[in-house]
Amino acid sequence: MMRSCRFSDTSHVFTLMVICFITLFSSSVHGQGKIRRFKWEVKYELKSPDCFEKLVITINGQFPGPTIKAQQGDTIIVELKNSFMTENVVVHWHGIRQIGTPWFDGVEGVTQCPILPGEVFTYQFVVDRPGTYMYHSHYGMQRESGLIGMIRVSPPSTEPEPFTYDYDWSLLLTDWYHKGMSEKATGLASIPFKWVGEPQSLMIQGRGRFNCTNNLMTPQRSEAEVCNASHADCSRLVLTVIPGKTYRLRIGSLTSLSALSFQIEGHNLTVVEADGHYVEPFTVRNLFIYSGETYSVLLKADQNPSRNYWITTSIVSRPEKTPPATAVLNYHPNHPRKHPPTPASSNFRPAWNDTRHRLAQSVAIKARKGFLHAPPENSDKVIVLLNTQSKVNGYMRCYDIFAVPSNANATMSDGIYRLKFNSTVDVVLQNANTMSVNNSETHPWHLHGHDFWVLGYGEGKFNESNDPKRYNLVDPIMKNTVAVQPYGWTALRFRADNPGVWAFHCHIESHFFMGMRIVFESGIDRVANLPSSIMGCGQAKR
Amino acid sequence: MMRSCRFSDTSHVFTLMVICFITLFSSSVHGQGKIRRFKWEVKYELKSPDCFEKLVITINGQFPGPTIKAQQGDTIIVELKNSFMTENVVVHWHGIRQIGTPWFDGVEGVTQCPILPGEVFTYQFVVDRPGTYMYHSHYGMQRESGLIGMIRVSPPSTEPEPFTYDYDWSLLLTDWYHKGMSEKATGLASIPFKWVGEPQSLMIQGRGRFNCTNNLMTPQRSEAEVCNASHADCSRLVLTVIPGKTYRLRIGSLTSLSALSFQIEGHNLTVVEADGHYVEPFTVRNLFIYSGETYSVLLKADQNPSRNYWITTSIVSRPEKTPPATAVLNYHPNHPRKHPPTPASSNFRPAWNDTRHRLAQSVAIKARKGFLHAPPENSDKVIVLLNTQSKVNGYMRCYDIFAVPSNANATMSDGIYRLKFNSTVDVVLQNANTMSVNNSETHPWHLHGHDFWVLGYGEGKFNESNDPKRYNLVDPIMKNTVAVQPYGWTALRFRADNPGVWAFHCHIESHFFMGMRIVFESGIDRVANLPSSIMGCGQAKR
Repeated sequence: MMRSCRFSDTSHVFTLMVICFITLFSSSVHGQGKIRRFKWEVKYELKSPDCFEKLVITINGQFPGPTIKAQQGDTIIVELKNSFMTENVVVHWHGIRQIGTPWFDGVEGVTQCPILPGEVFTYQFVVDRPGTYMYHSHYGMQRESGLIGMIRVSPPSTEPEPFTYDYDWSLLLTDWYHKGMSEKATGLASIPFKWVGEPQSLMIQGRGRFNCTNNLMTPQRSEAEVCNASHADCSRLVLTVIPGKTYRLRIGSLTSLSALSFQIEGHNLTVVEADGHYVEPFTVRNLFIYSGETYSVLLKADQNPSRNYWITTSIVSRPEKTPPATAVLNYHPNHPRKHPPTPASSNFRPAWNDTRHRLAQSVAIKARKGFLHAPPENSDKVIVLLNTQSKVNGYMRCYDIFAVPSNANATMSDGIYRLKFNSTVDVVLQNANTMSVNNSETHPWHLHGHDFWVLGYGEGKFNESNDPKRYNLVDPIMKNTVAVQPYGWTALRFRADNPGVWAFHCHIESHFFMGMRIVFESGIDRVANLPSSIMGCGQAKR
Repeated sequence: MMRSCRFSDTSHVFTLMVICFITLFSSSVHGQGKIRRFKWEVKYELKSPDCFEKLVITINGQFPGPTIKAQQGDTIIVELKNSFMTENVVVHWHGIRQIGTPWFDGVEGVTQCPILPGEVFTYQFVVDRPGTYMYHSHYGMQRESGLIGMIRVSPPSTEPEPFTYDYDWSLLLTDWYHKGMSEKATGLASIPFKWVGEPQSLMIQGRGRFNCTNNLMTPQRSEAEVCNASHADCSRLVLTVIPGKTYRLRIGSLTSLSALSFQIEGHNLTVVEADGHYVEPFTVRNLFIYSGETYSVLLKADQNPSRNYWITTSIVSRPEKTPPATAVLNYHPNHPRKHPPTPASSNFRPAWNDTRHRLAQSVAIKARKGFLHAPPENSDKVIVLLNTQSKVNGYMRCYDIFAVPSNANATMSDGIYRLKFNSTVDVVLQNANTMSVNNSETHPWHLHGHDFWVLGYGEGKFNESNDPKRYNLVDPIMKNTVAVQPYGWTALRFRADNPGVWAFHCHIESHFFMGMRIVFESGIDRVANLPSSIMGCGQAKR
């Protein structure tokens, strides 16, 4: 029966995992905190977030969606109305472990049936830990049409954070395509394979600037109608700071494809949080961030206050064909629209294929002293996931089991890994060459329902005998998303202590779509009664 | 309870009508004939049917979908697999009355829940009458993305048709937009309202020719990539005829917006069938056809056989901003690619706003002698539907009840009309001015589950006292789709003798979407057990 727990892949096998749950265990979904109730309507609207008009998914008219602000222990209730015409929807609460509520993890085909147009689905879960999280669609490639937003959980007032700041801001970073997701998904699932290409824009908090003047239009729509450089939707974001004050910037990335560097001209950024865990503080000029990650950095407004400064984010890890996104750090009382005296391009960033800086940042991220959760010293199981590409029945697939395919036409498994409840599992992400010569990509892997300890990184082929000896078992950071660098490996450890079925996948939307994803299943005999609202498709329909 | 039977409108109320059925009556869905089983896979593919590449819905890779060929009394079984990524689907069998199987009429929100991605849904129904029918999606505005095809039902061998021909061909006419349906639907449902505009192409059997050279591309895709005038998908259709032979052309229209004129240079067309009913033959040079209609015409290859001839279809009833579609009538043994010596534009057609010719054709269509089904002499109920526009909560709507709105901000009903079972109902379609000055549009109305007698047409305001005296009760044609001309009226009569809930709506996709639709409900206490496969949404989920 468990073999039916799997993602609905491009061949659309829809035997839903929900049949896997058995009623033996009952838990309360209510925490100790407040109940915070939201009514969201999800629909398409024509918007111009990078000045180019296209269909964008909005929540209550907003893109990105509203930031959920809550306190540790609060119960979040989101009544989600699907106001699409013909398309279904789900929402995943990225970084929220859904302890006791695995059915509200929001992964179509794994934890629930999709929500039909016209229907209202109620998500209810506890935010049990302070930190910075996100939410987004987890269905087809819908995330990149704009169903994205942030979650900000503050600690109880009795447990102050180990750093101070005056203001708290959220900045969600994304990349942006002008083609619709259906067209891109159709290309990825076609023979011949059509790659999605590079994004047209990057965006900071849903605002980018596509160069309209290069953009010749079809005769059906005039240029001004389709691409309007002075459209309010794409006005540049301005962050106004008061000299001397300290700002917490909660930076999340939900890019489809791009790894990013984020920087503020002339300013240091002190990293203090990663994926909801406090970091032993360290300072960077460029914050590297992969899709699925969140960081909090502290910014002190300590530079020459007579001018404004560029905030930029730019692509790393792929040839940089998409221009950086820009925003302005505005020192009060300068005019917010006062251009910085320097060109935006003067913000330093390393070359796109220079992995050393990025790896150095990853290695530098350690758990904050006083907030250590030491990992188990040994693991019960080691899973090595080869990160490469292959073909299945002629279709391009990302390939995710531990065997170098002997030929390009591989076979597939259902991708389900059953883990003994409460066992300790190591996963080694082993990168390799893609099907192109001299090409190995960066993959950010995201685990649902758990955080993992990041034990180590390495270059080349992982050595099962020697490399584990170098694992950091002293102060490894816990995260829910971690990258593996080209031709390198990343080792992580987690305890399978959250009953349910949990996706683990590359957070690059097209890689996920092409099959770079597995499911961990453990302790399902401890899962409580499933709500009927998640049923209605596959075997759950009968 | 019956109030919950309604279309899921743009506000997406999804209380499904299926709860209305009660189990009192049981019928067999099997006819006397053969069982014809089809396995269809519905998905998106990138195709260039008018030389411009866009996402097209295909069935088993084909656009238009495969023609279903069957004989009266056969049972059609279609196992439909939804291979979309995030979008649901349904299929309506246009003109098939679904006697005993109202749940397989394929109207989302009225007769079934939508079919989810990955699911297989089995339609099963009897084709109980010879004639020419069609199928198409009946969900959102999905039809115009290409889920369309034809159904051809032959009579039993013991009941020959009242005309003869040597060959039997199907030609499905459509119009075609380059924008996706979601973008158009979003515009229609927005404030400010965005009209879909005129189509970019017309197509004969899924082939058109957009003028690529006028079409400036975005920098993301080269012109040749997006619009390729020599693409195989848009090669001109050639119909090869043998001099002296007679051809039955089954012509159907599933345009989104356009009323069409169809003509073959230098040839007469003899109309012999309309919507599955034999017509007293008459000859035309221009066959006018509205969305939702089918006609059979006989074409005799009786012209100069040394040359080829243009087949064209062009827009009537709206300002003709879209060029005609062309195909070639190829007299064997001329080369199929031999251009006719005349320009394609030489095919005569009346001015777009000259309604006289069109009305004359409508009036000329009478039931064939020997095949008369006389209508009841009187009706039990008269429903007058005003065809105009209004606003509801600021959103543009087509307005469909018998009251001129006293202000532009009207209210809505659920649009359900309960009809006494077996009663006779007259519907008068009363056209009027739209919200634009001096503008009245053509609306083709389509009735599900029944045919109606077309009793009469008139100009101006219908007079309840006098106009019914002029009804044709002698030899009115029966149809399932009929047009009302600008500022005119059309009267029709039907017997509510098919238990179920049945849509009645304008067949213009955007008008339907905007609310120009009602539901007739009758005899639901006679409807058999509903199949569980139609459940899974709205109140049917619980």
